[in-house]
Amino acid sequence: MPSTRLVHRSEFCAAFRLNNPDFDEAWNAATFGVCNSPHFHGHNWQMEIEVEGAVDPDTGMVLNFLHLDKLVQAEVLQPLDHKNLNIEVPFLQGVLPTTENLAACIWQRLAEVLPEGVRLVEVRLQESASHSVAYQKS
Amino acid sequence: MPSTRLVHRSEFCAAFRLNNPDFDEAWNAATFGVCNSPHFHGHNWQMEIEVEGAVDPDTGMVLNFLHLDKLVQAEVLQPLDHKNLNIEVPFLQGVLPTTENLAACIWQRLAEVLPEGVRLVEVRLQESASHSVAYQKS
Amino acid sequence: MPSTRLVHRSEFCAAFRLNNPDFDEAWNAATFGVCNSPHFHGHNWQMEIEVEGAVDPDTGMVLNFLHLDKLVQAEVLQPLDHKNLNIEVPFLQGVLPTTENLAACIWQRLAEVLPEGVRLVEVRLQESASHSVAYQKS
Amino acid sequence: MPSTRLVHRSEFCAAFRLNNPDFDEAWNAATFGVCNSPHFHGHNWQMEIEVEGAVDPDTGMVLNFLHLDKLVQAEVLQPLDHKNLNIEVPFLQGVLPTTENLAACIWQRLAEVLPEGVRLVEVRLQESASHSVAYQKS
Amino acid sequence: MPSTRLVHRSEFCAAFRLNNPDFDEAWNAATFGVCNSPHFHGHNWQMEIEVEGAVDPDTGMVLNFLHLDKLVQAEVLQPLDHKNLNIEVPFLQGVLPTTENLAACIWQRLAEVLPEGVRLVEVRLQESASHSVAYQKS
Amino acid sequence: MPSTRLVHRSEFCAAFRLNNPDFDEAWNAATFGVCNSPHFHGHNWQMEIEVEGAVDPDTGMVLNFLHLDKLVQAEVLQPLDHKNLNIEVPFLQGVLPTTENLAACIWQRLAEVLPEGVRLVEVRLQESASHSVAYQKS
Repeated sequence: MPSTRLVHRSEFCAAFRLNNPDFDEAWNAATFGVCNSPHFHGHNWQMEIEVEGAVDPDTGMVLNFLHLDKLVQAEVLQPLDHKNLNIEVPFLQGVLPTTENLAACIWQRLAEVLPEGVRLVEVRLQESASHSVAYQKS
Repeated sequence: MPSTRLVHRSEFCAAFRLNNPDFDEAWNAATFGVCNSPHFHGHNWQMEIEVEGAVDPDTGMVLNFLHLDKLVQAEVLQPLDHKNLNIEVPFLQGVLPTTENLAACIWQRLAEVLPEGVRLVEVRLQESASHSVAYQKS
Repeated sequence: MPSTRLVHRSEFCAAFRLNNPDFDEAWNAATFGVCNSPHFHGHNWQMEIEVEGAVDPDTGMVLNFLHLDKLVQAEVLQPLDHKNLNIEVPFLQGVLPTTENLAACIWQRLAEVLPEGVRLVEVRLQESASHSVAYQKS
Repeated sequence: MPSTRLVHRSEFCAAFRLNNPDFDEAWNAATFGVCNSPHFHGHNWQMEIEVEGAVDPDTGMVLNFLHLDKLVQAEVLQPLDHKNLNIEVPFLQGVLPTTENLAACIWQRLAEVLPEGVRLVEVRLQESASHSVAYQKS
Repeated sequence: MPSTRLVHRSEFCAAFRLNNPDFDEAWNAATFGVCNSPHFHGHNWQMEIEVEGAVDPDTGMVLNFLHLDKLVQAEVLQPLDHKNLNIEVPFLQGVLPTTENLAACIWQRLAEVLPEGVRLVEVRLQESASHSVAYQKS
Repeated sequence: MPSTRLVHRSEFCAAFRLNNPDFDEAWNAATFGVCNSPHFHGHNWQMEIEVEGAVDPDTGMVLNFLHLDKLVQAEVLQPLDHKNLNIEVPFLQGVLPTTENLAACIWQRLAEVLPEGVRLVEVRLQESASHSVAYQKS
């Protein structure tokens, strides 16, 4: 049984800081180190969205990449790019914006809008040259 | 139980267009957009071939990478590189050369020639900075 | 005296072949090898456009990158991307589309449209993992 | 006459926004677009520092790369990484933090601390997959 | 059920040769080719370590990346970087240092030191532009 | 006046150590640090060779890339790849194999064999993710 998956790569840049208001300043400084820096810092997140589905024999495609471009643009890049993740993103309200949590929230948004027959397989976010996160949900 | 896989990366460049002769011109233009461009366009496809097998205790290898180089060269690069995928490739006759279909055809060719005990795991093709396809069959 | 340059990176994919009609088939086959392949082949060209100018003290910019995006899009990507370089590109009529000649033609187009005070410094085109061309004109 | 140059590559991530207080809100919004976003955004800047000097015949080196690592760390990465460029960086006070201006400020700091006989040649900063800046001063 | 994985990327450089003392010189030359070269050769191995675990709701993390940095540094980079894999690495004594075997030994070391609740998923080693190995054990 | 340059990218892997026999062990350890490691270490050097020349109007090329491939293969890759730079390379006898010196020796070899009308412009060697050397001679 064949499995065909598409991988869509893009980038968004945003500011954020890691700070859990349920804990005091000392705990936050010790836990998050420089990521707790009070005036925010930022990243270019390299994002890979992986989806799976049957290949339509008429088009030879799982999903037109241009369709996937639009979904990623509308659901992820438009709300996150050039934003402050602690302040300006409705679907991140109350979420500690670690790359782990960010990946889970992006999963949630994309899973709901994929066309029937196309399944979300993985969200990958690279936050720096040495650190990335991969998220999936079954 | 350990699993050891080899990943072999290479590149081929070819011309092609997407056009399904079972449908009319308007359908093809609407479905494939610029990829339906009449005089072809092209890509450098970055290809990754992933295989799995037991490590031979004498050689410490699943398969000599030079052996894998030769198989990939003979079965994929030689017939596809610097070719027109719509016209010149026998095993693509009648195939709509989307990256999805291309990956499936490459899988078919390689699966048949791998030495006993070595199993094909995945064929990955990157067609542009933002779009790739991964194919596997169990 | 400071010099500040911007580098703009993008990608276009096109089909082409190398064939000089002033010479016979044998000469073309011997000279261009697989690049003379009759039914075209293609590439994703990774393009870098480098421009230089004074930094405007009000904006802190040589030129807004979004402005540069638009010029590159209109003058280079729109006419070349998903096209056949031997057939469909008015400004390549009669030009043998080697990466060297392609870079010179792209230079010509961009040099004419850059805003006053911004100078084109170099056009770089990577045609494969191992081969690129850099072009400049003083 | 030979010229030998070293290129040192590293990365820092920071938050910032582009806003010139000498102009009103409408001018800033029109000039800087999404980069004027009020609550900051951020980048991973990929930085390349290029220096030139004679090769010491005893060590075969222009400058020990570990020495260069320390200078880059102390003068650039330590003050900029995980910081807000509009608020927390003494040497950026009053500077509009475009990548052009950032490169000039980094040049200034490094040029002053290089050992005798080693000359700064260029500072390059990549702010996104498609946009970079190169700065030099003679 | 969600799965969150971290991927940690780093690089080490070392010398080695492939030679199995249980076989004669001719067998070794025929089997390992240039990798049997008597005075060693070397690589920069690009290493990716993938781990999986539950996201701690207080920290939003599977494991602090700085913690993972320290484990990778102590268990892999410190003993392997700038070393001769045939001579100087205690845990490689008697091991033919193919990339396959290297990945298995790195797995062994890391699997033993990960904190409770964090599971090693895969060790990936890229030895050249075209060849990599992925290892996992369940 | 136009200038057209070709850039040829390849990779070789070799073992080496840095040790200057004119100095004692303590000096060598202090000067070269881990690169003085007694049993060698190694790298994959990413090499870029840049040449310049007039574009031949018949071929549209400065030099056929396949010709350049052969020169690089014969003069650089064949003698260096999978070798020990301290022991096995005739043209490195008595040379301390820092990346600076390596680049100068590669320049010397290539400058002598380029066809008339083609000028060597630069040799670039990347020894790790963060460190490279560029060499040129006028």
